[in-house]
Amino acid sequence: MKVVLGLSGGMDSAALCAYYIDNGYRVVPINFNYGSKHNKYEAEAASKLAKYFKLPEIKQIDLPFIGKDFTSHLLKEGGAIPEGHYKDKNMSLTVVPGRNIIFISIMAGYAWSIGAQVVAYGAHAGDHEIYEDCRPEFFHAMSMAISTGTGKRVSLEAPFLNFTKRDILNSGRLCNPPVPWELTRTCYKDQPISCGKCGSCVERREAFQLLDMYDPIPYEDDKRVPRR
Amino acid sequence: MKVVLGLSGGMDSAALCAYYIDNGYRVVPINFNYGSKHNKYEAEAASKLAKYFKLPEIKQIDLPFIGKDFTSHLLKEGGAIPEGHYKDKNMSLTVVPGRNIIFISIMAGYAWSIGAQVVAYGAHAGDHEIYEDCRPEFFHAMSMAISTGTGKRVSLEAPFLNFTKRDILNSGRLCNPPVPWELTRTCYKDQPISCGKCGSCVERREAFQLLDMYDPIPYEDDKRVPRR
Repeated sequence: MKVVLGLSGGMDSAALCAYYIDNGYRVVPINFNYGSKHNKYEAEAASKLAKYFKLPEIKQIDLPFIGKDFTSHLLKEGGAIPEGHYKDKNMSLTVVPGRNIIFISIMAGYAWSIGAQVVAYGAHAGDHEIYEDCRPEFFHAMSMAISTGTGKRVSLEAPFLNFTKRDILNSGRLCNPPVPWELTRTCYKDQPISCGKCGSCVERREAFQLLDMYDPIPYEDDKRVPRR
Repeated sequence: MKVVLGLSGGMDSAALCAYYIDNGYRVVPINFNYGSKHNKYEAEAASKLAKYFKLPEIKQIDLPFIGKDFTSHLLKEGGAIPEGHYKDKNMSLTVVPGRNIIFISIMAGYAWSIGAQVVAYGAHAGDHEIYEDCRPEFFHAMSMAISTGTGKRVSLEAPFLNFTKRDILNSGRLCNPPVPWELTRTCYKDQPISCGKCGSCVERREAFQLLDMYDPIPYEDDKRVPRR
């Protein structure tokens, strides 16, 4: 079985990748360049992850119209990335209208073209608060749309749909091969070192704390003693 | 109310445009350049239609990865366009995997970004036979996906879902303003003059015959006396 998935370079997609490899799938990774502030850093991380997981070359898909015509603080043309917790209202400024709907649709068309039976994305419970296209009601409707729209050739899966970020971290470390967290990129900001303060960084750090794991990436405000 | 719709330059999208204008909507037209054989001719027709309908400038969205990575005889890189009736099995060679799923998703994200409440596409009963993403079961699932995925900001509509091509022709001629059929482009082939033999041309000619209307575009195999 082949699965097409968006390998963004973040924790969720890295854990998704590990999950499917561990389950015997051949993973076909796609990376979307849509004009976000952190696209460059994400793409670098995705590329390192693909090498680690011994995947075929990442299919790079450019969607410049999103950066140009859509409104979101996550985009280069948008306002500053807000700091705080994902659940804070201002984090909804980072929503890119319809992003996952678009990514899933493109992956479905591509999967059909190459004979892959599954398309997967890393939606999880932590996303539900602000990302409409990560919620169960969207997932179920979109699954049906992909199934009917491809004549049952392609199925949509979201194995982490009801996982917390902690559960994803736990899944990723238990997979074979495990996720190399040091290669992942989480921060939303347009800077090489992670800020540690945006919703995305805050959620990641919380997850590592909850599992009492050491987060191997450095942060701007790091006060920890580096570990090997 | 604003509606975002894909103005391909064909009969269906032209009639869709007229329908929404007649119903008092402001129409925001998008044209997708996805590497099909007839994209160039479609884009020219779309541009003329936009002028006729006094629409804002067409938003041109390029999706070069479809032409490059997807498989279909409709694409420049694909095999020859089959001739015959839409219902013939070989016409399914012209299916572009997931095309409408992708177009609808992008239109939904764009509609959300510009505050348009509706996204529309011209699926109709004549498409049901071979285009999975034009069938009612897809439309209903995708409507739900767009509604949930955009937090009920955007609705998907397909007012011609159960129309035949003849019904679309009839709708378009009764609208105010009526559709200028001479400006529309239907043929799938990579040639300026319509072939008259591909599924798309055959369906169009049938519709004009059924309504006893004169089709104002010339065909390669035309034996009619030109009319004014």
